[in-house]
Amino acid sequence: MPLGEIPGDKSDSRYCGVETQFNDDMPQLLALNINGGFDFVVASLMDPAYRPSLMDNDSSRSGVLPFAGSDLVLSPLQWSSHVVGKISSWIDLDSEDEILRKGSEIALKQEVAWASHLSLQACLLPTPKGESCANYARCVNQILQDLNNNMQLWLRIPLEKSDDDAICGSSDNLGGGQIDSWELWNSFRLLCEHHSQLSIALDVLSSLPSANSLGRWFGESVRAAIIHTNAFLTNARGYPCLSKRHQKLITAFFNHSIQIVVSGKAVHNLPVGSSELADNHTDNHVDGLPIHPLRSYLDYVGYLYQRLGPLPEQERFELGYRDFLQSPLQPLMDNLEAQTYETFEKDTVKYIQYQRAICKALLDRIPDEKASSVTTVLMVVGAGRGPLVRASLQAAEETGRKLRVYAVEKNPNAVVTLHSLVKLEGWEDIVTIVSSDMRCWDAPEKADILVSELLGSFGDNELSPECLDGAQRFLKQEGISIPSSYTSFIQPVTAAKLFNDVKSHKDLVHFETAYVVKLHRVARLAPCQPVFTFTHPEYSNKKNNQRYKKLKFEIPSDTGSAMVHGFAGYFDATLYKDVHLGIEPSTATPNMFSWFPIFFPLRTPVCLQPGSPLEVHLWRSCGATKVWYEWCVTSPIASAIHNCNGRSYWVGL
Amino acid sequence: MPLGEIPGDKSDSRYCGVETQFNDDMPQLLALNINGGFDFVVASLMDPAYRPSLMDNDSSRSGVLPFAGSDLVLSPLQWSSHVVGKISSWIDLDSEDEILRKGSEIALKQEVAWASHLSLQACLLPTPKGESCANYARCVNQILQDLNNNMQLWLRIPLEKSDDDAICGSSDNLGGGQIDSWELWNSFRLLCEHHSQLSIALDVLSSLPSANSLGRWFGESVRAAIIHTNAFLTNARGYPCLSKRHQKLITAFFNHSIQIVVSGKAVHNLPVGSSELADNHTDNHVDGLPIHPLRSYLDYVGYLYQRLGPLPEQERFELGYRDFLQSPLQPLMDNLEAQTYETFEKDTVKYIQYQRAICKALLDRIPDEKASSVTTVLMVVGAGRGPLVRASLQAAEETGRKLRVYAVEKNPNAVVTLHSLVKLEGWEDIVTIVSSDMRCWDAPEKADILVSELLGSFGDNELSPECLDGAQRFLKQEGISIPSSYTSFIQPVTAAKLFNDVKSHKDLVHFETAYVVKLHRVARLAPCQPVFTFTHPEYSNKKNNQRYKKLKFEIPSDTGSAMVHGFAGYFDATLYKDVHLGIEPSTATPNMFSWFPIFFPLRTPVCLQPGSPLEVHLWRSCGATKVWYEWCVTSPIASAIHNCNGRSYWVGL
Repeated sequence: MPLGEIPGDKSDSRYCGVETQFNDDMPQLLALNINGGFDFVVASLMDPAYRPSLMDNDSSRSGVLPFAGSDLVLSPLQWSSHVVGKISSWIDLDSEDEILRKGSEIALKQEVAWASHLSLQACLLPTPKGESCANYARCVNQILQDLNNNMQLWLRIPLEKSDDDAICGSSDNLGGGQIDSWELWNSFRLLCEHHSQLSIALDVLSSLPSANSLGRWFGESVRAAIIHTNAFLTNARGYPCLSKRHQKLITAFFNHSIQIVVSGKAVHNLPVGSSELADNHTDNHVDGLPIHPLRSYLDYVGYLYQRLGPLPEQERFELGYRDFLQSPLQPLMDNLEAQTYETFEKDTVKYIQYQRAICKALLDRIPDEKASSVTTVLMVVGAGRGPLVRASLQAAEETGRKLRVYAVEKNPNAVVTLHSLVKLEGWEDIVTIVSSDMRCWDAPEKADILVSELLGSFGDNELSPECLDGAQRFLKQEGISIPSSYTSFIQPVTAAKLFNDVKSHKDLVHFETAYVVKLHRVARLAPCQPVFTFTHPEYSNKKNNQRYKKLKFEIPSDTGSAMVHGFAGYFDATLYKDVHLGIEPSTATPNMFSWFPIFFPLRTPVCLQPGSPLEVHLWRSCGATKVWYEWCVTSPIASAIHNCNGRSYWVGL
Repeated sequence: MPLGEIPGDKSDSRYCGVETQFNDDMPQLLALNINGGFDFVVASLMDPAYRPSLMDNDSSRSGVLPFAGSDLVLSPLQWSSHVVGKISSWIDLDSEDEILRKGSEIALKQEVAWASHLSLQACLLPTPKGESCANYARCVNQILQDLNNNMQLWLRIPLEKSDDDAICGSSDNLGGGQIDSWELWNSFRLLCEHHSQLSIALDVLSSLPSANSLGRWFGESVRAAIIHTNAFLTNARGYPCLSKRHQKLITAFFNHSIQIVVSGKAVHNLPVGSSELADNHTDNHVDGLPIHPLRSYLDYVGYLYQRLGPLPEQERFELGYRDFLQSPLQPLMDNLEAQTYETFEKDTVKYIQYQRAICKALLDRIPDEKASSVTTVLMVVGAGRGPLVRASLQAAEETGRKLRVYAVEKNPNAVVTLHSLVKLEGWEDIVTIVSSDMRCWDAPEKADILVSELLGSFGDNELSPECLDGAQRFLKQEGISIPSSYTSFIQPVTAAKLFNDVKSHKDLVHFETAYVVKLHRVARLAPCQPVFTFTHPEYSNKKNNQRYKKLKFEIPSDTGSAMVHGFAGYFDATLYKDVHLGIEPSTATPNMFSWFPIFFPLRTPVCLQPGSPLEVHLWRSCGATKVWYEWCVTSPIASAIHNCNGRSYWVGL
């Protein structure tokens, strides 16, 4: 049964599995473990003693099936929902022994084919052995080409691989005599071209690598974490528990929809029938059935799961958007729909920040003694359905300043709603509605304050600079723009899921597009760095909205090697003086949901070795009818320049 | 005028250019240099003092053209055949100075556009300055997208770049305080995605890097070599000459269709009017015109050119095949055409080797005393139009042994010719013609000797193993197969031209196909290593034609970094005992032309740093209806596995 019910969590991490010994009585094996409280078993499908015959060339035709069981012993539903097939761990496709190598290939293909016949959801592939994994990867890659779409292959990878085991690919030692098992995975998946049905089952043992090293896995396709009983500590009452670091890791697994599998023998001797945390489960036990020997471990995992607590409302709202690539809005070329306005207007945090900024600007501009005599001209450019008009009027009321408002909006549909709002609120004397593009409006007077919300996830990517350049004509020389400046930021990320989604389109265009996306299964490899800054108003005669920035990122040395699939982008805007608004993680405005980050993919992921910096270049280019970004990497190795001349992705003027 | 006429050489390297100072009288400049013996000038199109205005935002619309000359001063033919446009050398797109950077971009785009308007064949781009070349490359990449197809951009790269200059991209020093200018090029072209209109003009100075370092350029798209006058030595009579190493390099340039450009001031003071090597040219001088100050350098270059001598017949024959990708034959699935037989039968060297092998086998098998009593049964499997039948009969005659020959051929068209040959030569009593596939022929008796020529460029790639497995049934237990074994070989190569040709198809299939190709513009980065070996006859019951090989290549340390675009493949066959036949470069059979090498491309070229080995894996896989190769790289970084399941390229059984 599931570990618990957490409101909002519908992910697979509710289900907990158990790794079992081979047992040719599958119904019994399953009953034992399901009755014992587990949701699924990770079970060998083939007797470990079986070896396919190599001598008899006809074995593939006349040979018997590799094990005694029949598919009829379980129902199709039982097979597919309760069994993960464990591929024989003796197989070694990179052995120096050619006979073993060939036997391994036959066994691997036979077992996966059988698992596929049973419609299992996943097979667990043994950890690569030996110095190389190329032949193993070649064989798995062949299998993946024709694999039933519903089946995943979980490659078993230990979080830490000891020095004794040889590993595949480049083998830079990390400090402390450990070999980086992530590199093993990285070689394997590169050989298999990031195949979307190849994923990871992590072996969690008693010692853990550094937090930065662990962090990389959250950008990878990890489906399961196999926790060994000897990774557990013993609490004061003799029951299993986990170290703080392990607890934090398991919690992170839950948050990333990674399923837990308990493995190994019970190493805590508990009085039979007692189960400290699971008293409430006792009624569920079928009479006469013994308690599962790993029950206390399962109960502890369940305790950690239930401790998560319900998802906050914002996260629940964003759940469906996690790692889902969206094309950025084209608000200049397209008119937004009512639904889009509706969503953004609900972001009260954002409008509170605007109201604070407008208040400060009004107070700075109009001393108390002139509050009743001077009227401030405030123009909302891009007024939409009026939320900034409301915020402005509330600021005027709060500060006791007099206001004359122009609400300029190019979308004629939004203007309809604006008129109705003004009438409803009785603002007719204060607010003038202008149905026009701010870039060509001929204003009847100049403004003291220009208020706009034209920012995209990457700051300038919805052409705020170009729009405000156009609107600047009707701002007084010493007038204020809210926002007064904004800066974009990027950081390199591992994001195997996003990379695969981009790749699935099989074209260049999608690899040269920036996407708006709620980043979740992502490893942030280095702190953000600022990219482009725009300031408003800007009266310099050398004014130009083209930009070029070169950045150098250093990955923390205890991360190990890492894969960069692209860059996460954010912005931070100074609305007025100390009032800011933004999504850059280290300074993000809390509880604001109007912007997800942006993602710039790389056509070829870049592998970083420890100590070698990542050098990135970004350009913002402007043409007669469009604005676009180009980007590339020059170190450790030069990539192609992405989106040359805006051929794939651009924002229309 | 051309440097000379070499029979068979129709390449551009006959033409020699000269780099000139800016002169706004282009007709005079051209007359002076063409009359002086050069074929073209490399000339600035814009006054070096000119700087595009940055302050005036409207300059692009109202500004005057950047220099005084008009396109009318020369005829279109003069412009296109005699002028290479030299882009202003002051431009620096990666300067820290933003004004200089933006001015450089405007100037670069203006000058290339003007050169394109003049239909010039090439522009010479200045060497990248500064620590980075990314912005320069971004701008050139933008230009390349819309560039007239007939124009090349030659990026000027010094063969050696001194430590004083900063360079772009990673900057591992090579021994001796030199920076590797090849890395500069490599970054630039990766940023521009190997664009086929981006090529190289090499600056040749007085010192040269190591031979291995130089060798890399012959796999790149080098169009011109600019030899500076101060790279010349002075001979005993005061005339310019070049060091032995320089001479060898220039000769290699000629062999690779690279044009020479002479640059710099005359640094050898010769008596006016004298020209040691060019006495024969004196008549060509127009009266009153002074001899060109660089004439003696041109004459020396002409002397080196003429010293090349005529091309050997085989090379002349192969000229049209150089670096031209061909799909390998499918001799099992397709029947060869008469023309193909015709070509291969002309390869007398090959048949001489076969005859030698058959002689030795006959002598070993039949002692002199039995020569007249015992008849040897020899079967030619895959007899084609009969060349091996002839070689066998000649061997019998040479050794005085008696022979009975079966000529087995599956192509019914070739069988027609075989019958006519046998009749013509009067071989009816000795030769039996069998029109059948050797894999299913029911032989009336067993053979002493089985002779075949089923080898492809990569040895087993035309399925000789599978065919001979089928034929082995009718070989006596102690019988001889000629060939008795064969081995394939590979080596990593730089081959920008081949890579680009593969890339131009814009699909996966072409990147996962092995090609037969006369390798010419290729840098061989390491000695060959053996891959797969097949031995005939093979009676082992574990017999299997699947193969797997892992290879590790070390690039010589004085090469520097290098780019691997793929692998050149070869074979060597042991016909009988010490008689071999092959194309592996270190042991190749001289003057044999039946096989060009094979080329296995890499989808993503791999950049090797000095000291880091290249690890490669190759598989030969066999299915029910086809045989195919898969290949990948696992170090320095894992590539995709190419041609999984033979999805792109296979040989039909």
